[in-house]
This record gives sequence, C-alpha cells and structure tokens, in this order.
Amino acid sequence: MKNESIKDLKETLKELSEIEILELLRDFASEDQVMIFRLLEKERALNIFEELDQFLQQKLIESFTDSRAEALIQEMAPDDRVKLFDEMPAKVTKRLLETLPKDKKEETALLMGFEPETAGRLMNPSYMKIKKEDTVQEALKKVQNAAEDIESIYTLYVTDDKRKLEGVISLREVMMGKEDQKIKELMNENVIKVQTDTDQEEVAGILKDLDFMAVPVVDKESRLVGVITYDDGMDILEEEMTEDIYDKAGLANLKTKESSRSAKLIDGSILQIWAVRLPFLVIALFGGLAAGAVIGAFEESLEAIAAVAIFIPVIMDMGGNAGTQSSTIFARGFILGHITPDRFLKHLGKEVLVGASMGTLVGVVAGLIANAWQPIEGLGLAVGLALGLTMTIATTLGFMIPFLLQKFGVDQAAGSDPIITTIKDISGLLIYFLLVNQFLGHLM
Amino acid sequence: MKNESIKDLKETLKELSEIEILELLRDFASEDQVMIFRLLEKERALNIFEELDQFLQQKLIESFTDSRAEALIQEMAPDDRVKLFDEMPAKVTKRLLETLPKDKKEETALLMGFEPETAGRLMNPSYMKIKKEDTVQEALKKVQNAAEDIESIYTLYVTDDKRKLEGVISLREVMMGKEDQKIKELMNENVIKVQTDTDQEEVAGILKDLDFMAVPVVDKESRLVGVITYDDGMDILEEEMTEDIYDKAGLANLKTKESSRSAKLIDGSILQIWAVRLPFLVIALFGGLAAGAVIGAFEESLEAIAAVAIFIPVIMDMGGNAGTQSSTIFARGFILGHITPDRFLKHLGKEVLVGASMGTLVGVVAGLIANAWQPIEGLGLAVGLALGLTMTIATTLGFMIPFLLQKFGVDQAAGSDPIITTIKDISGLLIYFLLVNQFLGHLM
Repeated sequence: MKNESIKDLKETLKELSEIEILELLRDFASEDQVMIFRLLEKERALNIFEELDQFLQQKLIESFTDSRAEALIQEMAPDDRVKLFDEMPAKVTKRLLETLPKDKKEETALLMGFEPETAGRLMNPSYMKIKKEDTVQEALKKVQNAAEDIESIYTLYVTDDKRKLEGVISLREVMMGKEDQKIKELMNENVIKVQTDTDQEEVAGILKDLDFMAVPVVDKESRLVGVITYDDGMDILEEEMTEDIYDKAGLANLKTKESSRSAKLIDGSILQIWAVRLPFLVIALFGGLAAGAVIGAFEESLEAIAAVAIFIPVIMDMGGNAGTQSSTIFARGFILGHITPDRFLKHLGKEVLVGASMGTLVGVVAGLIANAWQPIEGLGLAVGLALGLTMTIATTLGFMIPFLLQKFGVDQAAGSDPIITTIKDISGLLIYFLLVNQFLGHLM
Repeated sequence: MKNESIKDLKETLKELSEIEILELLRDFASEDQVMIFRLLEKERALNIFEELDQFLQQKLIESFTDSRAEALIQEMAPDDRVKLFDEMPAKVTKRLLETLPKDKKEETALLMGFEPETAGRLMNPSYMKIKKEDTVQEALKKVQNAAEDIESIYTLYVTDDKRKLEGVISLREVMMGKEDQKIKELMNENVIKVQTDTDQEEVAGILKDLDFMAVPVVDKESRLVGVITYDDGMDILEEEMTEDIYDKAGLANLKTKESSRSAKLIDGSILQIWAVRLPFLVIALFGGLAAGAVIGAFEESLEAIAAVAIFIPVIMDMGGNAGTQSSTIFARGFILGHITPDRFLKHLGKEVLVGASMGTLVGVVAGLIANAWQPIEGLGLAVGLALGLTMTIATTLGFMIPFLLQKFGVDQAAGSDPIITTIKDISGLLIYFLLVNQFLGHLM
C-alpha cells in the first residue's frame, strides 16, 4: 500500500469507534489485521487488544517485533494476560513471562499456579480494600486515591490486618452513607465468596444469578486474594456454552483445553480443524457400521421382503430427533439450574412419559401411513410399534446418558451426541427387525 | 406443616445466602416454593424475586393474594417488570398494569410500546445524568443525591437541555479528576450508543465485546431515553444462546417468543411440552418417510443384493454427524463474530474443502472395511464414494442452510437440524443407490 493511503487509513481509523475497529479486525485477513493494528494509537491499541479473542491476540503477538509484543503484554490486565498465556505455546509463554518486570512476573506466575478454569486462574489480584473502622469520608478518599491503579473500584472489600475478608460494600452504598458514619455500620457481613479452586462455571452462575458486579476470591485461610468481575462472568458464560455446544456436536478438542475454539475451527489450518473434527467422526463411523451389522443379522428377512428397508430411515431419524431434543433439554436445564441432581429421577420419569406419549402418537400416524403405502400384513404394526418404542428409548437415553457421564466425572457433553446416536440406532433397528420377524415371519 | 417447624424454617432461611435460597426455590415443587417465598423478609423477597426466571415469577404471582402480587410488581425495576409482563397472559398483565401508580404505569407502558427483544423494551429508563458545565465536585454531589433512587450510578451521562446525549464518563473517571475540573474536559464525546429498535443480541454483543458496564439507548432524535446494564447483557446472552440451541434441536416455540423456555420444557404441563416438541418431530417424520421413498425406488436392487442395506445406517449417520458439526461451527462462529457475511463465500469454500478431505479419508476407510466385510465386487467402492460425497454435501449444507435461512429473514436456527437431516438423508441415499446400481448393476 502507498504511503498516502496508509495515512488515509490512519485518519479513518481515528474516526471509528472501538466496536467498529473490532469488527474491522475480525473481517480482515491476517496481514491486514496486523497492519490495521499497527496504525492505531498506543492507548487505543491496548484497549482493543484486550477485547480480541486469544486466537487473534496470539496471531498479532507473533507478528510483532519482540519489543512491541513485550510492551503490549506488560500493559495488559493480569487476568487477561494469563488467558492469553494459556493459549500460547509453553515456550513463547515462558520467554514472554521472563521479560515482565518483577512484580508483574510474580503476579502472573501466582495466577498461573492455579488450575485452568478455576476462580484462582481467572481473578484479578488487585481490588479495592478498606478497613471497617474507616468512615465514609475516609473510604471515599481511599477510592479516589486508588482509582487510577485499580480496575474495579465499585465494590469495596473490608479486610482485617491478616487480609481476612470481613465484609463488602458497594461504592453506591458508601456514597449513600453519612460522611462520618463508620463502614462497619454499613457493610454487608454476609459475603458471598468463592474459593481459588471453585470452577469458573459456578463463578459465572453467581455473577449472573445475583446480578453481582464482582465476586471475591479467598484462599483456604479465608484471605482475600482477588476478585472476578462481571465482564469475566460474561466471557465465562459464553465460553462454557460454546464448549458445551461444540462438545455435544462431536467437536471436543481432546488434546487441549482452550477457549477460542470457534476462531480456531474457522481460521485455523486444515490440520488443526481435522484434529478437532475427525476423532468423533471416526467413532460415529464405527457406530454406523455396528448399526449396519444389526441389519446384516436380518439379511434373510430383507431378502424375503425388501420393502422392510424403506422404514429404516424413519426409525433412525425419529430416534435421533427425539433423543437430541431430550439431550438438549437436559443440558440446558442442568446448566440453567432447572434440573438438579436431587430431583433427577422425577425429571427422568416425566421425560419418559413425554417420550412415550409422543412415541405413541407418532407411531400410530407412521403405522397408518406405512400400512397404506406398503400394504403388507403386519408391516404397519411393526413400523408403528418400533417407532413408539425407539422414541421412548431415545428420549430416555438422551436424558440419562449426559447425566450419567456427568455423574461419573466425564465431561458431560463430550461426544454425547455420537454415543446417543449409536445406541439408539442399534436398539431401534434391533427392535424394528425383531418385530418384523415376529409379525411378518409367516411371509418369509 | 406445624407452626413450630415453620418457625424453624424461617430461622434457617435467615441464615442462608440469597444464592442458597435461589437454589432451594428451584429445587422444590410449586406449593413448597410459595411457602418458602412467603417466609422471606420483605426486602429479601423482592431481591430474590427479581432474580428468578419469569416462569417461576409467574407461578408465584398467580399463587399470591392480589395485594401481595401488586406490591411485588410495584417494587420491581421497570425493565424486570416488563420482562415478567411479557410472559404473562395479556389479561393478567393488563389488570396488574392498572394497579400501578401513575408514574410507574406510564414508564411500563412506554417500555412495552417497543418491540420485544429490542433495546427499547429492555432498557431501564432511569439513569444518572449530569451537565457538561458541572465540576467534578458538583457531579459527585449529584451522584450522592441520586444514589438512593437510581440503580446504576457508575456510568454518568452528559446531556443537554433537550436530553441530547453529549458525552459519557465513568464514576471512576470523575473520581480521578480534580475537584474544580469541568466534566466537559474529562468526558468521552465519542459515545457508543444504541437505538430503541436495536436488536437485543447486538446490545449484548457491545456490552460483552467492550466490557462495558452499560450502554445508553437513544431515540430517533438522539435523545437519551434509557440504559441497558451488564446484568441485562448476561441475561440476553444466555437467553439468545438458549434460544439458538433449542431452535436448532427442533424445540422452536412457534407460537410465542418467550425467554423461559427451559423452565417451561421441564416444569410445564405435558401439553405445553408437546406444543414445543411435536411440530418438528412431525416434520422429521415426513422427512424420514421421504428418505424411505428413495430406498423404495431401489427396491429391486435390494431384493437382488440385501447386503446393500447394511450400509444405509453409516451413510445416514456420517452425513448427519458431519452436517451437525458444520451447522454448529457456523452458528457459533456467526454469533461470536468469527464469520461475517462479507467473507461468507471464503468460509464456505474452506468448509467444503474440510468436508471433502474428511469425506475422502473416512470414505477410504469405510470402503476398505465394507469390502472386507461384504466381499461383493463394487460394493466397497460404492460405499466409500457415497460416504465421501455425502459428507461433502452434508458439510456444505450444514454451513449454507443456516446462512440462507438467516439471509432471507427466517430465524436462522429454527428447525435447521431437521431440515438438514432430511436433505442429507435423501441426497445421501440417492447417491448411494445410484452408485450401487452403477457398480453392481451387472449382479442384479
């Protein structure tokens, strides 16, 4: 590009809002992304960099000169920095970590010492702390002095000399108090907090369910070590949902846990994409062949009455659709808290009832259609009954398998769809052909 | 329950945190929920009520005496009240609306005048406004005076006499300023705002992408009419994802747009559940029968070589799994902004390449297995080729159909899975049997 058009672009970028630049960056190919990013003013570049997903952040970092990359990394908030480090090759992370000033290096190493996807890993170790003996005026003064350095000043944490969390108060509540009122009279002592090893999904749930702006993180000794804010809550929520959706569709990444799977599945190399997509397709291949073996076992029935094969797709599809509905309802209901382990059996009972009633209805309709279409005595009855039973089994499995996987500690969603598909195919086809043999045996 | 155990329960409830009570409420059956809720202190009851989903809110409201219900409704934040009204039968909404004091009635009616799922419908009409001529000290005084009444005081909006939005400044930035500094020197004039008719998904995207605490809503004349805060952003995000997931799995509620579908699908009556689940199952039934018709058309081939039927499941399943992967990747990538309409063709090209390469690999493996298992000349070749082609078509369709539905204004996800299932079944089976006839025709 010529110098002039670069100047023009720089001017244009100045007039765009941050959200427009974010969209622009996502829309462009790698080389252009790097160039656009280079043209941004320093402060703006940092703001926008922090909002990019880690896949794009990594690409940009790799394209920068070392000094530029180091400067960016240094300016990031500690929790954002850790998120980026989690995605990068260990070598690069180590090198970049070394270039940080001592205090930031320690802070980052502390966070990286916690397990991925826990509160400790995600928290921001700097927060606004006050003492319970402070007056409203003193507390406000402290906030004013700290505002420059601390990202989240709207929730104030009351700690004792040993950093033990004694209470919490919002800046709004402080501002509503009288100047000489003591914080201990105003603060809320019943603090909802999480441990450093609390799962990130639970943290997001608290932030969302209670509309909290931040939730404090304490260590084993109840000392306050950091806070997780609403914006992290949104990111976790989206990340967890995306994970569940991908895992269910057989897009579980078995090798690494990473948060920017969408970007990778779309902008990654073909090999990266294969690594995520192929494993479950191969599992499904053997599932499909196993279902075929059921048909193979009844080859003689098929040779006698080929019309029997006409209803194989409907048995397979209906089982699949009914099962997917159930597994979707279970997965969502479980995450949203509408299904709890305590009441699981009650929910399962209802699901079986729903599945059986829908199966009966669909079975009767399909049986009548089959009978009219292929007027072979007994075939309509076999189709209808098999469909009703398969749908009942598929809804039950769709509800039960994710629950059992979850219960036995397997990531609830990973590949649940291919597993359900295989089981319902085999059982559905087996039921169908057994019924065919039962009702149509005399014709063979 | 005896009086004493009720007293005990009341004491126990006092010691529980709000999040524990929320979980408790979700865990219990209807009658118990009502009783637990009645035992809560007034202030707490309101807080918790606002955090419940609308399905449970509605159940509670219906079980209360009129005066109790009216008192609760009156105390709710205007945006939460509108969300609840949206879920209730029009009659009840109208009656409850009438019981509100005049100012709240007008406020609520104003919000309900906007289309559902737009910024206007979701916003909170009360916000913190200051003037650009205010000094830092004056602005802080204004915040202090308003803190009691206004829910969100951490973002301050600078408006002129006609309520036109001139700038925005965070309370943190105000607190960082010098006492006699004018707001106009500190405020950010480049305000990111939305219109009253902006789609809620876009609003949530801005809140999330920019880590904003609130986004202002303006009318056609650029007058500030309300704000949408981060907590609404989280709710929208979860609601939209839940909607997409449900719609995709054939759980689209065709009659009404409502946000508490998970609760309804789990705790609703069997008839309510049928209304959501059956329509797409019926569509899928006819899809499955149509796929069966393809097999019917090749009945003679089947009669000659029944072993051909063994590979029907694998063709159907692999097409389904590959297609689901693609539609999931498209849906997520589109929502997360990794796929943009401008670059759709490029993404599609890559998806076809991925599908074809995976299809080739899986096809070769499956063809070799088929050949070893059923050593009929040409069958392995037909299975392998059909599988490769079907997977390529399924990935292409999985990516394209949601995009086309979206482009032509149909809710992108509604029933996309049953539609993809039907098309890939028909095309997959057609390809398979045509190839069988081609390669094995001499055996028939």
